[in-house]
Amino acid sequence: MDEHLKNSVGIVETRTLRVVSADDKLGLQCGKSLGPIDVAYETYGALNDSGDNVVLICHALSGNAHVAGFNSAGEKKPGWWDIMVGPSKAIDTNKYFVICSNFLGGCSGTTGPSSINPETKKPYGLDFPIITIADTVNVQKLLLDKLGVKQILAAIGGSMGGMQVIQWSIAYPDFVRSALAIASTTKLSAQAIAFDAVGRSAVLGDSKFAGGQYHDSEGPDRGLAIARMIGHITYLSEESMRQKFGRELRSSDDYRYDLNSEFSVETYLDYQGQTFVERFDANSYLYITKAMDYFDVARDYGTLEHAFSNISCRFLVVSITSDWLFTPKQSQDILDALVTCGKNVTYCNISSPYGHDAFLLEPKTLGAIIRGFIDTTHDPLNRLEGSVGDSHKHKHSARVDRAKRARVDYELISSLIEKESKVLDVGCGDGELLSRLIVGKQVVGEGIELDQDLVVHCIGRGISVVHRDIDEGLGEYATDCFDYAILSQTLQTVKDPEKVFRELLRIAKKVIVSFPNFGHWKCRLQLLLKGHSPRTRQLPFRWYDSPNIHCLTLKDFDEFCEELGANVEKKIPISKHRRSAIRFLPNILADQAIYLTSKYEG
Amino acid sequence: MDEHLKNSVGIVETRTLRVVSADDKLGLQCGKSLGPIDVAYETYGALNDSGDNVVLICHALSGNAHVAGFNSAGEKKPGWWDIMVGPSKAIDTNKYFVICSNFLGGCSGTTGPSSINPETKKPYGLDFPIITIADTVNVQKLLLDKLGVKQILAAIGGSMGGMQVIQWSIAYPDFVRSALAIASTTKLSAQAIAFDAVGRSAVLGDSKFAGGQYHDSEGPDRGLAIARMIGHITYLSEESMRQKFGRELRSSDDYRYDLNSEFSVETYLDYQGQTFVERFDANSYLYITKAMDYFDVARDYGTLEHAFSNISCRFLVVSITSDWLFTPKQSQDILDALVTCGKNVTYCNISSPYGHDAFLLEPKTLGAIIRGFIDTTHDPLNRLEGSVGDSHKHKHSARVDRAKRARVDYELISSLIEKESKVLDVGCGDGELLSRLIVGKQVVGEGIELDQDLVVHCIGRGISVVHRDIDEGLGEYATDCFDYAILSQTLQTVKDPEKVFRELLRIAKKVIVSFPNFGHWKCRLQLLLKGHSPRTRQLPFRWYDSPNIHCLTLKDFDEFCEELGANVEKKIPISKHRRSAIRFLPNILADQAIYLTSKYEG
Repeated sequence: MDEHLKNSVGIVETRTLRVVSADDKLGLQCGKSLGPIDVAYETYGALNDSGDNVVLICHALSGNAHVAGFNSAGEKKPGWWDIMVGPSKAIDTNKYFVICSNFLGGCSGTTGPSSINPETKKPYGLDFPIITIADTVNVQKLLLDKLGVKQILAAIGGSMGGMQVIQWSIAYPDFVRSALAIASTTKLSAQAIAFDAVGRSAVLGDSKFAGGQYHDSEGPDRGLAIARMIGHITYLSEESMRQKFGRELRSSDDYRYDLNSEFSVETYLDYQGQTFVERFDANSYLYITKAMDYFDVARDYGTLEHAFSNISCRFLVVSITSDWLFTPKQSQDILDALVTCGKNVTYCNISSPYGHDAFLLEPKTLGAIIRGFIDTTHDPLNRLEGSVGDSHKHKHSARVDRAKRARVDYELISSLIEKESKVLDVGCGDGELLSRLIVGKQVVGEGIELDQDLVVHCIGRGISVVHRDIDEGLGEYATDCFDYAILSQTLQTVKDPEKVFRELLRIAKKVIVSFPNFGHWKCRLQLLLKGHSPRTRQLPFRWYDSPNIHCLTLKDFDEFCEELGANVEKKIPISKHRRSAIRFLPNILADQAIYLTSKYEG
Repeated sequence: MDEHLKNSVGIVETRTLRVVSADDKLGLQCGKSLGPIDVAYETYGALNDSGDNVVLICHALSGNAHVAGFNSAGEKKPGWWDIMVGPSKAIDTNKYFVICSNFLGGCSGTTGPSSINPETKKPYGLDFPIITIADTVNVQKLLLDKLGVKQILAAIGGSMGGMQVIQWSIAYPDFVRSALAIASTTKLSAQAIAFDAVGRSAVLGDSKFAGGQYHDSEGPDRGLAIARMIGHITYLSEESMRQKFGRELRSSDDYRYDLNSEFSVETYLDYQGQTFVERFDANSYLYITKAMDYFDVARDYGTLEHAFSNISCRFLVVSITSDWLFTPKQSQDILDALVTCGKNVTYCNISSPYGHDAFLLEPKTLGAIIRGFIDTTHDPLNRLEGSVGDSHKHKHSARVDRAKRARVDYELISSLIEKESKVLDVGCGDGELLSRLIVGKQVVGEGIELDQDLVVHCIGRGISVVHRDIDEGLGEYATDCFDYAILSQTLQTVKDPEKVFRELLRIAKKVIVSFPNFGHWKCRLQLLLKGHSPRTRQLPFRWYDSPNIHCLTLKDFDEFCEELGANVEKKIPISKHRRSAIRFLPNILADQAIYLTSKYEG
């Protein structure tokens, strides 16, 4: 075997299946109908007996069915996501049956505007009907039916691929067990539509476009290249362009003082435009960008929440911090709608400088997330049970430090929680407490965590976790949607404890809070007698380097609860020497405390 | 007078002056020479007897000399910056003699590629030499010489206009008293070059471009429109596009399912492209964008610091938070280089959703800043003396609250500072302390402040102030560049007091720190006896809503100084009842303290 075929699915073939015949045309969202429809697709791995190992990959604007491996021994570059798909890779072809098909309207084997119109015997050109994301998903469904697939373990895609994943989860809720939408959105922003529109304008305005019937001549290469150049700028971030090109000149140290391309970034874009023209059809570009512009789940279904109300899959939403085309905010809108609907959703905002393209360029973090999510969807309980006690080892994180210190109160917190209840752990760290509660108390558990590494760790355990800063609020959670919310060793580190606690009291029937007691006798005496800011085992920091930006005592918290209208149902003052509650002078003798509180109903 | 002429400079004329003759060509940066050169310009107001009231406005890419007023009674829209320039406006034509000229290479009256080449008697087209920002500034200087101007009070411009302002300050340091660079940069980013390059590519690739000799035919209108559409997207922010257009459709509630422009943002861009083509020359677009791409002060002068080393003007740098074409980071690079050179610089990062275009759309904030800066450059001392005691009234700012509380220690701090020294006030608030020190002690004073309103207030007083968060560091300040740094009632509110204090000890010979004493007897007793987090007159906040995220005592600060290698030269414990130092049990009886510290040499 050639060297470059190792660690890949090897030589693969793009096959084509006719999923719609000429006689029995498919009705499209635009009102027209289309037939015949052929679909180009590739598969890797094998469908298992139970049929529960299908991973459907949906490609982005310029992609195609050739995801991984090589179409011939001579091919230099493997498929577009080879980095992620293959034996023992994040999407493991030893375990899963992977399918990807070319988008309807595309130009890589699936029926599109460059296909022959049976009525005219010439390429469709602009006579091709407008297609939508929903249409292409319907066509993919027909393909899967023909392939004998009864259920998708995971539908996954980035960018426009993520749009298809979202559409799958809504249109075929019983068919999809999990959906992974990466760097995606339920609707393009005005800015993204604007970029698409300028690109289309460049193609349509090219004098060689010839009304779309350019197939016997040169074609609108210049316009299509312009469109691709614009696209490429939007796929990168300002930072990644700075790192990659800066203001470097292509071939000289001196300015040439003419109008030709001269900066490296210019020649890079020229090259990208040129190579794109060689492999992509201008009409397909028009149709596919229009399909993206039209995609608007809330418009199709009334509201996003209404669209999501019937989905039944686990959902993973991933965004990229530096992605300005499909922004983290847009992913968070998906997250928020799913949370509002009470759906099972996990979210991670990957810190990366690579912009929208990071979904192709961050194999390590993204790979760990995808692998963890798909594997734990496939085999949830085994993995979770195996992981209890397997706390994340991570040296340089204050959060981990906190998680470690918090562990002493896991047992006590656990004792406060009833079996089979619904629990939110705010600042869930590596997910250890949630794992214990899910395994030991059969709770339905979810976490919120700020640290990316810990979020990835939770995903690997199969825990649903949302990557966010609770100081930003919890407004999308419905009132009383949890039986318990847990805030362990976190209250004193948030910016606005009042806002956070009020929100938790709203969304959960009971709120469990633990915090270090600043009123411990050692603190009191240190301030009184030594005149300096207290440092104890429980509060080990100096005044200027403490993550605890609020200092509170048990009495402070009692008053706080009263002020905010919270009942204190249980109060467990503890110290490192005594794991059971301290009854005598708790505000003096306890170095921390656990409270069980609830809304005051009265 | 017509209604629309009121509040404007009225009817104005664009004049043209020949500044370079055909016989005596001007040498350009590219090595070629050009002549004749005519310059189109407008002026408003009158040059005063002392000649110290000249304001030079430099226009941006698509601007021209027509800044304000109307070129005819029938003109519907006034000049491009009428909102800012006119009688009693921010740039007050009752006081100042305002000049603006069309850019060299432009198409609004100044010699450019559409001018007649004397050698061929035809328009230059692509025979026009490449021009640079430096060339256009040199041509502006020739114009000012012809107009009898001996000195510029203020050179001001946004975007490419700001590039010219920067070039003015460097190329003619003795000629410029103040420079105002708004939403500008000393060099375009790779991303901005990329957008320019795609725009030029669209023009050059238009089949009607005809090698630049399109003057007798239709011209590359489609390509130029595409370039302008791209530009327009970059001038707006994602947020402003969302607010302005969202996903609204132009003329129907339903999708039309065709490839025509349909979303409002599409038809807006179509319109912008179309109208631009009617008023702008494609060749000028190529030359001017290239001039912007080539502008790179560090490249021309070795480093930015070297470029700025000889400037002598006051400098104002303004950026827009949502500007992603000329980013705040790029403005901060200008700021940092000026600070490193020890120049007089003021910076404000205006909070606005309008993106790059905000420099045309934020008349209130930007107007106050420009007015304040120019007026206090023109007439510095009068304004400052008049303002002492005139503290900023502002209700809803914790910073103002702090500034108010700080005032009780102004006298004591002032007593520690020697006359005619150089002082940095970190967290300078409304500039009251600095005003007193400048007027009373003749110090050279600068401030740093986080709150935008307070920054604008300082600028109105003529105080040099930098709008920034000190938690981001002070690395660009040279070692020992101040005699005193003052940190009044701020140490306990910064994220990393150690980093901030170390930096202040590095950049100033002496550091004055004041803070509330958490070791005051009332605090001690409240914690000891009542068991809750202390609340006193000096520390009036509850544990959960305090801006003081660190609690320290006098003893803590003593130890902190020792640990960081700082000498405590003076320590003035005070209380609200006693304005002089408390000598007996200061860590118990003082409710705040002022320290004079210095680096430990030794």
